[in-house]
Amino acid sequence: MNRLFHYPLSPFSRKVRLTLAEKRIEVDLVEERYWEQDPDFLRRNPAGKVPVLRYGNRIMADSTAICEYLEEVQPNPPLMPRLPEARYEVRRLVAWFDDKFHAEVTCKLLGERVFRKVMGTGYPDSANVKAGARAIKEHLDYMTALLEQRRWIAGNDLSLADFAAAAHLSCLDYISDVDWNRSETVKDWYAKIKSRPAFRSILADQIPGFPPPAHYADLDF
Amino acid sequence: MNRLFHYPLSPFSRKVRLTLAEKRIEVDLVEERYWEQDPDFLRRNPAGKVPVLRYGNRIMADSTAICEYLEEVQPNPPLMPRLPEARYEVRRLVAWFDDKFHAEVTCKLLGERVFRKVMGTGYPDSANVKAGARAIKEHLDYMTALLEQRRWIAGNDLSLADFAAAAHLSCLDYISDVDWNRSETVKDWYAKIKSRPAFRSILADQIPGFPPPAHYADLDF
Repeated sequence: MNRLFHYPLSPFSRKVRLTLAEKRIEVDLVEERYWEQDPDFLRRNPAGKVPVLRYGNRIMADSTAICEYLEEVQPNPPLMPRLPEARYEVRRLVAWFDDKFHAEVTCKLLGERVFRKVMGTGYPDSANVKAGARAIKEHLDYMTALLEQRRWIAGNDLSLADFAAAAHLSCLDYISDVDWNRSETVKDWYAKIKSRPAFRSILADQIPGFPPPAHYADLDF
Repeated sequence: MNRLFHYPLSPFSRKVRLTLAEKRIEVDLVEERYWEQDPDFLRRNPAGKVPVLRYGNRIMADSTAICEYLEEVQPNPPLMPRLPEARYEVRRLVAWFDDKFHAEVTCKLLGERVFRKVMGTGYPDSANVKAGARAIKEHLDYMTALLEQRRWIAGNDLSLADFAAAAHLSCLDYISDVDWNRSETVKDWYAKIKSRPAFRSILADQIPGFPPPAHYADLDF
């Protein structure tokens, strides 16, 4: 059986979970407190991060490399367009969310408000939380600008870029850090993606000590 | 004419320069002091980073998305293998160098010793420099372990993973921060890649105030 070592509020794990579910690839989910650097886990992935996928007899790390691999071995339903220009745009936006959004928003809000407590690394730094709260507004505006020109984040079809974006936003929504009133456009996009069957397991996540708000799993939020 | 907005000691810019040169795609190089956040530059790339490629009438950002695009539109000579498993390994290792090596080594050595001065953000933090000097040893050992099993970093053919690795190491070599005596295996690999025509422009780089050591451009270092 395929197995995904993940952490529920890791956006990189969520991106891979969404991709696996959309492509109907069954996996056992194994929660991994990766920051404890268990030697067995480090043997599987010397980078020491989640997600790690055991796929057949292969052990795979790096969420983007995993998603590109899954797209190549299981191309249906497609999460990458055909044309090089459109594929470029998907990859640019996956990197946008996994690098820029992650550094400016996810680390500053989720990192300070949840991971510090879970990992036992002290109290939230309020300057970081403030910076994250400011940055998410700009990112929602950027997403609005994109979604006003296209049906999905990177083009007219659902792609890995939507899953990257939704992975980060869903983690932040778990701690009520997304102001859905800021953009009707982004809210509509999130409602569409949230109602996909692939999203179900993510909406059922529970972190001990951090109960999700009622709207988190509500498709009609 | 195609144009690459880059910074000479940016490893991400170097990865794209190597890919363009290997594929014999001609570009004008335009040095961009991206941290000054010139409005014209930000219009080209809202992420505010180098490299940015003007290719035909397209403006493209994100070094990995650019390299994958170039591989798709100009597949010869190939910098990606054919099989999904081998392509996965290339992508995993590109991310290894651009994320992990970058955070643990490049930022801590080049970031502290060069970029602080160039950007005017104060003196080097010696704890970071020490951590970087320690981390590069582990990374050189990891590269040795890989290269003892394969001719190139990700397999038996030259790939984007070699260019990602060489981009970071060449920036560090510019400031004499690579101890080539640590691994004959890594040194042989670097000598092979350094002697490729694609490497020439990188060996000619000069940063005002930071003259490169004599061995930097020497193919017989």
